[in-house]
Amino acid sequence: MQHLDNIKGKEIVPGYFGRFVHGEKITLSIVDIKKGSPLPEHRHPHEQVTFILEGELEMIIGGEKMVLTAGTTHVIPGNTPHSAIALTDCRVLDAFSPVREDYRID
Amino acid sequence: MQHLDNIKGKEIVPGYFGRFVHGEKITLSIVDIKKGSPLPEHRHPHEQVTFILEGELEMIIGGEKMVLTAGTTHVIPGNTPHSAIALTDCRVLDAFSPVREDYRID
Repeated sequence: MQHLDNIKGKEIVPGYFGRFVHGEKITLSIVDIKKGSPLPEHRHPHEQVTFILEGELEMIIGGEKMVLTAGTTHVIPGNTPHSAIALTDCRVLDAFSPVREDYRID
Repeated sequence: MQHLDNIKGKEIVPGYFGRFVHGEKITLSIVDIKKGSPLPEHRHPHEQVTFILEGELEMIIGGEKMVLTAGTTHVIPGNTPHSAIALTDCRVLDAFSPVREDYRID
């Protein structure tokens, strides 16, 4: 059991501060995003299910632009290109499978 | 993209109303729980990562009793017995892998 306040995080790209919990199959991430911060287009083999906890996040997922608001969820299949820009400060939860080994923090 | 308000849910046990989003590897569930409602001990092969969005949930996981409050996360390995009782109204997010086929709603 771990409270978010006690999880060491890291800035994954400028303006995106993430904290991560890893199981054997799942990584859960909570990312706090500063308004206006862009997440450049990228892709990864991991499936991603995004759930917006706070704020408004514009995303382009597989070429489709959408605005995700608090309470919105979206499944991003593995290897789908996606990018984002925060229209407000945001807190976003993402579940990944398999585990994001690149998000392990020593 | 789906807002939680537009996802049809179901009462999985009395006092536990769940809404579910399924990918190919992950099921994300948001469960609204009424204060005082017990979740009997059970286990499933799926790994579960729990994140408390609101409220206080007492859980017994693998024989260990703990109180999870908003912002707390816990990894429940597959096949680990767990039970719960809501100390307050709660909203709990769970990520499962593999997909919870038993949580598909037609």
